[in-house]
Amino acid sequence: MQARQALADIQHLLTNVLQAPAQWQALAPFADTDAELAAQVLDEAAKFVDSAIAPLQRSGDEEGCRFDAGQVHTPAGFRDAYQAFWQAGWPLLSCAPDDGGQGLPAVLECVLFEWLAGANHGWTMAPGLLHGAYECIKHHASDELKAQYLPKIATGEWLATMCLTEAHAGSDLGLVRTRGVPQPDGSARVNGSKIFISGGEHDLTDNIVHLVLARLPDAPAGPKGLSLFLVPKVLPDGSRNAVVCERIEEKMGLHGSPTCVMRFDDATGWLVGEPNKGLNAMFVMMNAARLHVGLQGIGLLEAAWQKASAYAAERRQMRAPGATDTSLIQDHPAIRRTLQTQRAWIDGGRVLAYHTALQLDIAKHSANAGERAAAQRWCALVTPVLKAALTTEGFHGASACLQVFGGHGYVREWGIEQIVRDARVAMIYEGTNEIQAIDLLVRKVLADGGQGLAALLASLPGKAPGAAARARRHTLVEITQTLAIAAQTDPELPYWVADDYLRAVALVLLEWAWGQISAANPRDPASAPTSAFERWDQPAKAFAQWVLPEFDLRTTIVRQRIVQALEIKPKQPLALDGKALIAI
Amino acid sequence: MQARQALADIQHLLTNVLQAPAQWQALAPFADTDAELAAQVLDEAAKFVDSAIAPLQRSGDEEGCRFDAGQVHTPAGFRDAYQAFWQAGWPLLSCAPDDGGQGLPAVLECVLFEWLAGANHGWTMAPGLLHGAYECIKHHASDELKAQYLPKIATGEWLATMCLTEAHAGSDLGLVRTRGVPQPDGSARVNGSKIFISGGEHDLTDNIVHLVLARLPDAPAGPKGLSLFLVPKVLPDGSRNAVVCERIEEKMGLHGSPTCVMRFDDATGWLVGEPNKGLNAMFVMMNAARLHVGLQGIGLLEAAWQKASAYAAERRQMRAPGATDTSLIQDHPAIRRTLQTQRAWIDGGRVLAYHTALQLDIAKHSANAGERAAAQRWCALVTPVLKAALTTEGFHGASACLQVFGGHGYVREWGIEQIVRDARVAMIYEGTNEIQAIDLLVRKVLADGGQGLAALLASLPGKAPGAAARARRHTLVEITQTLAIAAQTDPELPYWVADDYLRAVALVLLEWAWGQISAANPRDPASAPTSAFERWDQPAKAFAQWVLPEFDLRTTIVRQRIVQALEIKPKQPLALDGKALIAI
Repeated sequence: MQARQALADIQHLLTNVLQAPAQWQALAPFADTDAELAAQVLDEAAKFVDSAIAPLQRSGDEEGCRFDAGQVHTPAGFRDAYQAFWQAGWPLLSCAPDDGGQGLPAVLECVLFEWLAGANHGWTMAPGLLHGAYECIKHHASDELKAQYLPKIATGEWLATMCLTEAHAGSDLGLVRTRGVPQPDGSARVNGSKIFISGGEHDLTDNIVHLVLARLPDAPAGPKGLSLFLVPKVLPDGSRNAVVCERIEEKMGLHGSPTCVMRFDDATGWLVGEPNKGLNAMFVMMNAARLHVGLQGIGLLEAAWQKASAYAAERRQMRAPGATDTSLIQDHPAIRRTLQTQRAWIDGGRVLAYHTALQLDIAKHSANAGERAAAQRWCALVTPVLKAALTTEGFHGASACLQVFGGHGYVREWGIEQIVRDARVAMIYEGTNEIQAIDLLVRKVLADGGQGLAALLASLPGKAPGAAARARRHTLVEITQTLAIAAQTDPELPYWVADDYLRAVALVLLEWAWGQISAANPRDPASAPTSAFERWDQPAKAFAQWVLPEFDLRTTIVRQRIVQALEIKPKQPLALDGKALIAI
Repeated sequence: MQARQALADIQHLLTNVLQAPAQWQALAPFADTDAELAAQVLDEAAKFVDSAIAPLQRSGDEEGCRFDAGQVHTPAGFRDAYQAFWQAGWPLLSCAPDDGGQGLPAVLECVLFEWLAGANHGWTMAPGLLHGAYECIKHHASDELKAQYLPKIATGEWLATMCLTEAHAGSDLGLVRTRGVPQPDGSARVNGSKIFISGGEHDLTDNIVHLVLARLPDAPAGPKGLSLFLVPKVLPDGSRNAVVCERIEEKMGLHGSPTCVMRFDDATGWLVGEPNKGLNAMFVMMNAARLHVGLQGIGLLEAAWQKASAYAAERRQMRAPGATDTSLIQDHPAIRRTLQTQRAWIDGGRVLAYHTALQLDIAKHSANAGERAAAQRWCALVTPVLKAALTTEGFHGASACLQVFGGHGYVREWGIEQIVRDARVAMIYEGTNEIQAIDLLVRKVLADGGQGLAALLASLPGKAPGAAARARRHTLVEITQTLAIAAQTDPELPYWVADDYLRAVALVLLEWAWGQISAANPRDPASAPTSAFERWDQPAKAFAQWVLPEFDLRTTIVRQRIVQALEIKPKQPLALDGKALIAI
């Protein structure tokens, strides 16, 4: 991806659509971060991504990581690029000034990581968990641990991992068996085996700080018996800890990122946070981590779109309808539809993701408790939607962009097939998309009978919705209430339709996003040339025409399954007024 | 894929659902092919595929083809497997007895190739074009050429290629520049460069017969100036022809199949068929070739399903709703939905594909002209639908099956990611899926104002449709008529909605297929155990619940675009009665 090509779009969305600078400047820590400073930061970020990271995309994929007797060698150039990255201060972007950070709003870091993922998803896995580890250590570790580790994690001089998964414990962390046994000196002996550890071993940095989920002796079974331990690759005395990389996985893509099997053999670690509260310590960073994965979907899709769009502007095949000679393929309706539709996902997805990043900061820093609660609600409800919907589109949309190339898309030369392979993983990690859907519907929406979602929909900011958009929001609230009732009869029901429900929510949120984009794009022939207007109008129409109709499909599927759950015969129309049903 | 695991299903669909043996026995050439003989052939085929071809799936992907100074080395075991394949007589399956063939119905060859693709898509590319080349040479080549080449192409002792694509001429064959210049001795000198030639060079057979699209001197521009030439790798005198493999492509998948750039440097060839009628000679085999690609989608999806289903029956994670202990993931609704939905596509897709294969034979061999015409209509209309819908599902469904594995799906070990990579190409080759949709809607359906499609829908055989199915067929006919009218105002219209239209047709056809499957699956507790009944009932319900609702989505999208084309404001309801509109 060329970050530079996306820069003006993103500036427009942040400044004119979301009024992001005004939003973050209302928060004390960012009062001095004006739009100009933010623009400078993004400008520098774009230059860095395009010049230092993007050029290693294809070579990183082709060369891949190499495992050799416990050592992992990353592709040529990866270490230098990483050293340049941390030495230029990029990991400090949104760290607190007290920790040497630049204290900038989270949304700027989001843009940086969106670009990095689009430029080189494999490389970006290395620093991808860094800020989460920083937050985790900052908020949960003891002062001694912080003194030892926080500065180098903040700067990124050392990288970090999250060691959660075990062979038999993937989505179900309650099954984790790794053990941590406290020692008299305050440390712990950690024993166990972890899989799917991104960056578990590599040559990018001199030390690697592992955050390991494990059980204390006599801990209760299940997820409430998990504690978190910090286990460094190199101990403070300079000796090597008993942490061994056993092998790296061969994968569909993401070859630039070593996915490690890690063995802890009486490794020395230290408890982070309270005993048996390990998941809490990790969940501190969960919303931000899921948002970042959603942004990977956007970044990869933008990368795929840029490639497909450039190809379509050069390749000639057949006559478009009405043409008298062979046309550029960008003039064929099928290609135009693909490019405009993916543009609709990228632009709308960005508005949602950046708005969510702003809410992360508002939830933390607003002086107003009601504002904090509303922002917290937004993050809780919208983050799983973004994670699932944007990574699904990252993969399927990249595949649609591949199709623009015809047979050329299937060969490596053009780089588009790599994006499809790389993008696939984001639908799985950080909680599979099915788990996001269950998190949304079962754990969050139905937990309060849909009231939180209804309140969120009623308070969507900005331009007021039109009648059709209002009707869709109403439908969503009605279906939610009905689901809550019907689930009492059929507890399986929400698990069957959670994916459809998440899609319906995603589409209503995207409709809101496009409403905001369109409101900021008034046709003013005097000041804006037609092409500038059409830049945003074309995908707005594509969204309405090709994307949004899926809302009715999803709600139909949910309704039909509700009918089945209630054992109401289809001939009897289902009363979808929530209040009426609650009275049943 | 284990062909053996699919055998009983396929036998049931052929015998009990489609009454295929009775259908082919009504045709003179297959009068003696009884159900028992067919069953024996399929039984042997399953054994061969499982024992000789499937074991080379992963090694073929990992080792890949190797290019070395013009030579192509296929992965270890590929040559032996191919030699065993042709020596066992498999290519002769549906060749005519006059040519030494076994003269069996096309549908049996379809099942064989579905299994081969599911077992090893890369390897199967080699013999994939063989039967098409046989038909092409048989029907278009001169007697001398036939004497020289037909026997060894029929047996498969020699393999064949189709050399169509050039760097600047992919979907648009009218742009082909390769030239063939007739020589006094009746041969031709062929010069030019071709890309994406599957099996252009390899070590599987001692000779390779290239069928090359090229232009005679003074041929008209465009597709009507293309002629077909037969250009062998080794000339009849044993010398090497001037056909050079310049390189092989690095691809997303299909590593077991060499995709070659071929250069013809004054190569010796011979005209096949009439001058400037090269496309006609190739189109002889187009319906069969597209059907075979659709079957690749089915075969790959079955392979993915078998893997996912087996994994789901072993892997335990989290409690399913209502469970008191950790559940097998096959008990979680999200997993059940995925597996049942993909089962619905495979089973329904098989009925459509096998029915189409029967129509190919009926179109050729029926004694009744009306039957031949109806079968021809079926093949013309349904083949592009199958090619596009089944390859799309091959890729997206395989990806859904990958998701069942969670993170394990993304690593090579389980073989599922290879299926996703391999399956992607089938959406592109043999005419991209977008071109299939345009072929269906513009070239076939609208060409006769939708009459052919209406007639096909009105004469769908077997069990009569229920009211809802009838309504969907009616909707399809109405939309078709309206499209025909609106396209006169807006010639671009059908090109924008061709994909949706094809999907709507596919869903109506699948609904018919599932009607037939369900009709053959009466609940009879005395004779059939519940599990046998549920084997077909569960995916029938999944089809109705999760797949079929897309029909309304697609028709909504088409209707909204029609409204736009007619510039009727949405408030005015669109009269969708065909006759009324024709009167406008």
